[in-house]
Amino acid sequence: MAEEAAVRAQAETVRRLKQDKADADEIAKEVAKLLEMKAQLGTDEGKQKFVLKTPKGTRDFGPKEMAIRERAFKAIISCFKRHGAEVIDTPVFELKETLTGKYGEDSKLIYDLKDQGGELLSLRYDLTVPFARYLAMNKITNIKRYHIAKVYRRDNPAMTRGRYREFYQCDFDIAGQFDPMIPDAECLKIVHEILSDLQLGDFVIKVNDRRILDGMFAVCGVPDSKFRTICSSVDKLDKVPWEEVRSEMVGEKGLSPEAADHIGEYVQLHGGLDLIEQLLQDPKLSQNKVAKEGLGDMKLLFEYLTLFGITGKISFDLSLARGLDYYTGVIFEAVLLQQENERGEEPVSVGSVAGGGRYDGLVGMFDPKGRKVPCVGVSIGIERIFSILEQRLEASEEKIRTTETQVLVASAQKKLLEERLKLISELWDAGIKAEMLYKKNPKLLNQLQYCEETGIPLVAIVGEQELKDGVVKLRIVATREEVNVRRESLVEEIRIRTSQC
Amino acid sequence: MAEEAAVRAQAETVRRLKQDKADADEIAKEVAKLLEMKAQLGTDEGKQKFVLKTPKGTRDFGPKEMAIRERAFKAIISCFKRHGAEVIDTPVFELKETLTGKYGEDSKLIYDLKDQGGELLSLRYDLTVPFARYLAMNKITNIKRYHIAKVYRRDNPAMTRGRYREFYQCDFDIAGQFDPMIPDAECLKIVHEILSDLQLGDFVIKVNDRRILDGMFAVCGVPDSKFRTICSSVDKLDKVPWEEVRSEMVGEKGLSPEAADHIGEYVQLHGGLDLIEQLLQDPKLSQNKVAKEGLGDMKLLFEYLTLFGITGKISFDLSLARGLDYYTGVIFEAVLLQQENERGEEPVSVGSVAGGGRYDGLVGMFDPKGRKVPCVGVSIGIERIFSILEQRLEASEEKIRTTETQVLVASAQKKLLEERLKLISELWDAGIKAEMLYKKNPKLLNQLQYCEETGIPLVAIVGEQELKDGVVKLRIVATREEVNVRRESLVEEIRIRTSQC
Repeated sequence: MAEEAAVRAQAETVRRLKQDKADADEIAKEVAKLLEMKAQLGTDEGKQKFVLKTPKGTRDFGPKEMAIRERAFKAIISCFKRHGAEVIDTPVFELKETLTGKYGEDSKLIYDLKDQGGELLSLRYDLTVPFARYLAMNKITNIKRYHIAKVYRRDNPAMTRGRYREFYQCDFDIAGQFDPMIPDAECLKIVHEILSDLQLGDFVIKVNDRRILDGMFAVCGVPDSKFRTICSSVDKLDKVPWEEVRSEMVGEKGLSPEAADHIGEYVQLHGGLDLIEQLLQDPKLSQNKVAKEGLGDMKLLFEYLTLFGITGKISFDLSLARGLDYYTGVIFEAVLLQQENERGEEPVSVGSVAGGGRYDGLVGMFDPKGRKVPCVGVSIGIERIFSILEQRLEASEEKIRTTETQVLVASAQKKLLEERLKLISELWDAGIKAEMLYKKNPKLLNQLQYCEETGIPLVAIVGEQELKDGVVKLRIVATREEVNVRRESLVEEIRIRTSQC
Repeated sequence: MAEEAAVRAQAETVRRLKQDKADADEIAKEVAKLLEMKAQLGTDEGKQKFVLKTPKGTRDFGPKEMAIRERAFKAIISCFKRHGAEVIDTPVFELKETLTGKYGEDSKLIYDLKDQGGELLSLRYDLTVPFARYLAMNKITNIKRYHIAKVYRRDNPAMTRGRYREFYQCDFDIAGQFDPMIPDAECLKIVHEILSDLQLGDFVIKVNDRRILDGMFAVCGVPDSKFRTICSSVDKLDKVPWEEVRSEMVGEKGLSPEAADHIGEYVQLHGGLDLIEQLLQDPKLSQNKVAKEGLGDMKLLFEYLTLFGITGKISFDLSLARGLDYYTGVIFEAVLLQQENERGEEPVSVGSVAGGGRYDGLVGMFDPKGRKVPCVGVSIGIERIFSILEQRLEASEEKIRTTETQVLVASAQKKLLEERLKLISELWDAGIKAEMLYKKNPKLLNQLQYCEETGIPLVAIVGEQELKDGVVKLRIVATREEVNVRRESLVEEIRIRTSQC
């Protein structure tokens, strides 16, 4: 298994180097573009003295990207609703002190607002801390909710890999005092449903427990005071090879080489129920109280996941640590696997698309009396999913519609603007999605072309003869077929002909 | 008409004073609460040293508020889609310089981010300037799009009246070079459709044109340099009486009393096509080129609005000015009217719920070569609409569901957790919205009560006998009827019984 892990780590390193190269190329292109713009401005007497761009690490979503994004959201929201979740929303910024002390080493990435007199504010870093603040503030002890919103991190953006400074999170959390592992299992079921539904390819959901990690650190001889910082080092294992992590532990963090090596043996382990059983027999780990608790719950979790029929995609993985301070029990992370078919290599992880865990202490940090509300939740990392869906759509050359317009109101002759306005108004009032060109006398060809370009399936053509006869000529764009429809039947006819849209 | 206006202004003043009183009461209550909290913390050894709240002028939306909000959004989005709009999204912050010089006197209300090294950023103040930046940056000259997102203003919040520092805007805009007033008329049709659809009560859409205002200022003797600042004064007429506006013009802004009085006569005028005709004959105004252009287009607009059948709710109103700098043509604002039935008074305006206008120069401010893209758009002020819908729902005592769960998976006996997990997993996989209590052995009464509280219409009960017989007992919560359904027919049965949900 050690060999397998080494091969995987190496493949991962190669992939990362390729991506770094791609990022560097992109940056070089950006710089060239900017220099060109600057040169242009210099000769142009400075009509515009600033750079026309979105802030670093952010992007606009145009109509096509939005159509893709809405597809993904639809799948995610319908899963959350299938599991009976309510929805809430919180402000984009919080009091600075609300976020203080919740994110460990990542706190430096929080965006602060300028002190303009009044409260000190920060942009939210995730949706979990605002959720905990919301529960404590409203004394809610029992809720199952989802929240889809943007969060902000002053991270080093890697936009080709779908890593931004402004990005959406889709969170589902269950708060309340319940019997062990039932809500935790549901969170994993949800990740499984969403990733299957979105058809992103093969994936694995890694699972671990903070209590197992803490117990492991204890039996390896890590001093209590170093648990969190050593945990941060372990968390890097999905990005850097063990040797680097080890030297950080020993060099920077002052851990004894023996303790590090001992950890090194454990974090190579991954498996299923068999591994849990093996560790429950482990002479050292089984003597540690928290580890034993964690392993017992992990066993229960696997039993429930077996009933859900999803253990095939679940891997109990001792190297999974998760960066955030607030986790107290089960933690998990879903990664997509990229099949490298040509060389017959092992599936390579292409990065995390969902993660979460149990945080039983966070709400208590906000409650004036420290009352705890146990919580477990999952966050879907939608940006990476968008990137994949976008790339796939580009490759497929599928044409994606960005409007839902059913019919274009057109005319073949001049001087019929008023008639077009009257007809389109009737259609709108009947709930038909209709457009017209904003020209007094548009050419019929231009009107038909507009339908071709935008995918509008029908054209309702008014002409003098049709007006006299009390009919409208309905043209089916795909077949070029034309039929006269009595004006009073037009709405119904359009509905029938577009009912499959 | 002057008398009528005076009566309206007076009624408005009384209403405002009442509201100010209500706001002051609310603030007093807040302060009392805070003092109480502080006292508590003092005795509580400071388990929590900070105030548990959302930032000033912001609020959380709980499940009930979200359900109301989503109803309103649904009506608005379906209207935008009916008119063939695409959707875009832009980052919540922009480069600070992108927003500079676009908002006139309101620029002081922009939220800046702290300089943490890197670019200087500000939170967006509206969706219009980011839209113009997006068009220029992507060289788009032709688009019809909507954008629904939060914007930020460091304004004095008046939350009882639905005025917040973080609030949603729902914008619809048409960009492109088109024949006059066709897109402008569509924007007004959209406002009319949305306000009618939401059934917020009677409303009026005030319309004016910046060119008519500018012409009016010119013929009244306002120097060119004072146009914008006098326009800002006129803009206050919906909030303060004419006398105050006049004294601001003369006292603070140095306008001659004669010019002010002359303006005072014009701004009392409101009406329809008749008023437009009258002003086209006005000896002074008809001599002014821009005013004449504006009046000509206003006449055309009214012709189109007549074809749409909505002139009954439109008022050409010379006191309408709109605060923002970037408008260049038609401007409009929709206000709800409150019927004060008891005293038989005139309908009183309860505030603006939508506004917009034409801004033909804004995109050119971003284009390196100053290329213009004419635009017209409307923004729906959704927060005030929420406030009204919330109050109405509270008054009606209608129970609003916050989930869509179709069935609760329950058991009558102990030791059936595994069977419940198996069944709920089957239901989820078949697309049924299902919940269960997260207890190993919940009481049947508690399970049924949960359905009553949350409005879940069906309960699927597994018991030992049912398992033996291969059936599930389906209970209809409303009627307490129970039927045995064969397990393989359960999904279909649930679908049929909840198809109207």
